[in-house]
Amino acid sequence: MKTILLLILTMAISISSWQLFNKADEAQQLRKIYDEALTNAECYDNLHHLCKNIGTRLSGSPGAAAAVEWARQVLTTIGADTVYLQETMVPHWVRGAKEDARIISKHIGWQSVNVCALGNSIGTGKWGITAPIIEIKHLEDLDKLGKKGVKGKIVFLNHPMDEKHIDTFDAYSGCAGDRYAGAAAVAKHEGVAFVLRSLGTGIDEFPHTGNMAYKEGIAKIPAAAIATRDAELLSGIISVDPETTFHLNMQCETLPDELSHNVIAEIKGSEKPDEIIMVSGHIDAWDNGEGAHDDGSGVVQSMEVLRIFKSLGISPKRTIRCVLYMNEENGQRGAKTYAQAAEAANENCLMAIESDRGGFTPRGFTVDAEETLLADKLGAVQRFLPLLLPYNIHFIEKGFSGVDIKHLKPQKVTCIGLVPDSQRYFDYHHTPNDTFDKVNKRELNMGAAAMASLMYLVSEHGL
Amino acid sequence: MKTILLLILTMAISISSWQLFNKADEAQQLRKIYDEALTNAECYDNLHHLCKNIGTRLSGSPGAAAAVEWARQVLTTIGADTVYLQETMVPHWVRGAKEDARIISKHIGWQSVNVCALGNSIGTGKWGITAPIIEIKHLEDLDKLGKKGVKGKIVFLNHPMDEKHIDTFDAYSGCAGDRYAGAAAVAKHEGVAFVLRSLGTGIDEFPHTGNMAYKEGIAKIPAAAIATRDAELLSGIISVDPETTFHLNMQCETLPDELSHNVIAEIKGSEKPDEIIMVSGHIDAWDNGEGAHDDGSGVVQSMEVLRIFKSLGISPKRTIRCVLYMNEENGQRGAKTYAQAAEAANENCLMAIESDRGGFTPRGFTVDAEETLLADKLGAVQRFLPLLLPYNIHFIEKGFSGVDIKHLKPQKVTCIGLVPDSQRYFDYHHTPNDTFDKVNKRELNMGAAAMASLMYLVSEHGL
Repeated sequence: MKTILLLILTMAISISSWQLFNKADEAQQLRKIYDEALTNAECYDNLHHLCKNIGTRLSGSPGAAAAVEWARQVLTTIGADTVYLQETMVPHWVRGAKEDARIISKHIGWQSVNVCALGNSIGTGKWGITAPIIEIKHLEDLDKLGKKGVKGKIVFLNHPMDEKHIDTFDAYSGCAGDRYAGAAAVAKHEGVAFVLRSLGTGIDEFPHTGNMAYKEGIAKIPAAAIATRDAELLSGIISVDPETTFHLNMQCETLPDELSHNVIAEIKGSEKPDEIIMVSGHIDAWDNGEGAHDDGSGVVQSMEVLRIFKSLGISPKRTIRCVLYMNEENGQRGAKTYAQAAEAANENCLMAIESDRGGFTPRGFTVDAEETLLADKLGAVQRFLPLLLPYNIHFIEKGFSGVDIKHLKPQKVTCIGLVPDSQRYFDYHHTPNDTFDKVNKRELNMGAAAMASLMYLVSEHGL
Repeated sequence: MKTILLLILTMAISISSWQLFNKADEAQQLRKIYDEALTNAECYDNLHHLCKNIGTRLSGSPGAAAAVEWARQVLTTIGADTVYLQETMVPHWVRGAKEDARIISKHIGWQSVNVCALGNSIGTGKWGITAPIIEIKHLEDLDKLGKKGVKGKIVFLNHPMDEKHIDTFDAYSGCAGDRYAGAAAVAKHEGVAFVLRSLGTGIDEFPHTGNMAYKEGIAKIPAAAIATRDAELLSGIISVDPETTFHLNMQCETLPDELSHNVIAEIKGSEKPDEIIMVSGHIDAWDNGEGAHDDGSGVVQSMEVLRIFKSLGISPKRTIRCVLYMNEENGQRGAKTYAQAAEAANENCLMAIESDRGGFTPRGFTVDAEETLLADKLGAVQRFLPLLLPYNIHFIEKGFSGVDIKHLKPQKVTCIGLVPDSQRYFDYHHTPNDTFDKVNKRELNMGAAAMASLMYLVSEHGL
């Protein structure tokens, strides 16, 4: 009964605060935003250009520089009041020409398999590494095996993403830490290379890359991901032939840091120009694909928000800013640079939204803020939910926001993640299969409209 | 304030009725259903077989017979208590070998375009029809033009689906009536053929077929759909050359009715075997594609519901029935036969679910029933919503159920539609592009799990 009373109380409060603004007017404005996004959006065409004419754009690469310049030009054409580049140094890791791997066993001779280097990995040297390979299910198994079991060997971590999670990001979270830390854990026991079962849902031929790191004082060894299809094969062969060996040849390396840029554009607020609300995505993408969902979608959706405001002639009360972060994938240097500059300038950013979970149909928003602010800010965003329900935005709840904007949390920014449907994301994530054709135009437009709507409401009513 | 009190009251009632059963136990059971569906479901492999090894299966075709026999075998293997075929006569329309169309204009010479006959259309005769073509935006425009403007001409209805709808089925509903009735309306004014802009979202090269009908006492004329890309082209050419002509050659025809079958399988209820709850899809599909989303997905999901019950060892209190209807696409003869037989047998069917909106991520359920029952039954289904929310089933609301099961409504059956996300459906619907690769495994499994969950809850607690 206590719970019921609490529920009713919460409801009454949320209803009363929701009635602080004119619901009918705002409903009409949101309808205009969706109409514009569903009939005139340019984000799908922009995504086509980004994927097909620019393509791969890992930090430090010529593609990344091209993407920055392209975004600057598009945002200028859209008619933002100011468009500028914010300098940031970024790591410059390159995959190199060769990525080659084979399973070698007395039962099959040898069999080529699909692998890719994990980002930041060292290479194998010109002739590659050939060594016995052992399979583990969890990184903790290394401690049981000890140096005796690991030394001189390649370690294959065969830990599938748990398909039972409804939100595939929960399954990813259960594995991503191992990708990051696996090589150091293996090297500690004097293993010679680390091979990770790709972090993907389902079974296919695409290896999934992603960032990894070494540990101070522990040897650096090569780290690769193997396609899930080939992980199954490798596991099967090891199970019948414990003397299976593995050959790995990768020519990746880390070059000196490069100068790169975040791309920033804004429409000045008409009443409270010093209060900033932000929409964002990251303009870098892994070098093995087009980065259509990760995060081409977030980039073109964020730009689209500004275009919608301009096209509908909305003069926002607060300043609307679009930030396209560089280097989310392997360092977050762009996000850190931005956060430092914002702090130094003592900026007052009320809210930041990030779209970095793919260009799928949006389902809700997650809200994060400093602990003392969270309940208040969550409630403040939730009062807009009734206006978003007609557009199938079904929840606004506490949750992680985004990798780039999380750096703004200590500055009292309410950080918000756009949550699209997650079922397909990890089929494509960080693979050559994350291509333009995997993005549906209406789904992409719906995400842009959802973000534009929330940006509009907060620009009018604050948080 | 009145609204608020009403809201609170509704909430209190729904909370109290929800507490009539043990929520924790049922939550645990639903978790098992989802775990089973997400890790062991066979529906994706079954869909692969249906699409790739059987393929097209329009009523009366050998493919339809193959699909019926295949489904019978799969349901038998699953271990249903009874599996049987229910005879039904069905129309037998065939597309014929040739479908050819050209735009002819002094500006361009001639240009081939992609068309397909609408289901039930007559053919054009061996040498086709060549005639002046005029464009209209709405069928009502014909009355303004009158016989003088239409006689001897081909009429091109260029009415795009309205992209502003959030639910694409609303956009489809705004056009599907014209597809059905367009040819008769044109023939009434002595036009010689009807060409419809395909009912699809977006612009592409695939013509969308679908059913049409003639009217008693009005001449039968050929009816075709033209791909949206080519509709844009045709419209552009007509706008600069009002003397544009069109050539249409289709060899479709209607053959005598054939004997076909619904496929029915059930698991007998352990406590109330005479109370039936049904899950269903339709096993026929248009002849121009694999029918992966429409409605291969509904078929394999419905079969999967029975498999999940068997695999988890759930002995349902009420009888669980899976019905795979024949002839949804062009006559609904299977559904009518089933409904007549159920009425004759005085069957007590509490609930029927239909999955016929594609194998996309499920978002909710719609509920329909006879007017006097609707409020009660809607409430009865809604009391399960809290158990489904963790699985991203965000709504249970009043709405259309399904084309097949709607025939059961007069028998006091609560008719329920599974509502998947609709954004992509009309990219594929009734086209050669509705292929297996357009269905995502997890999304398909989530739909099967949602239906299995609701079937389980109603089998335990009634309605």
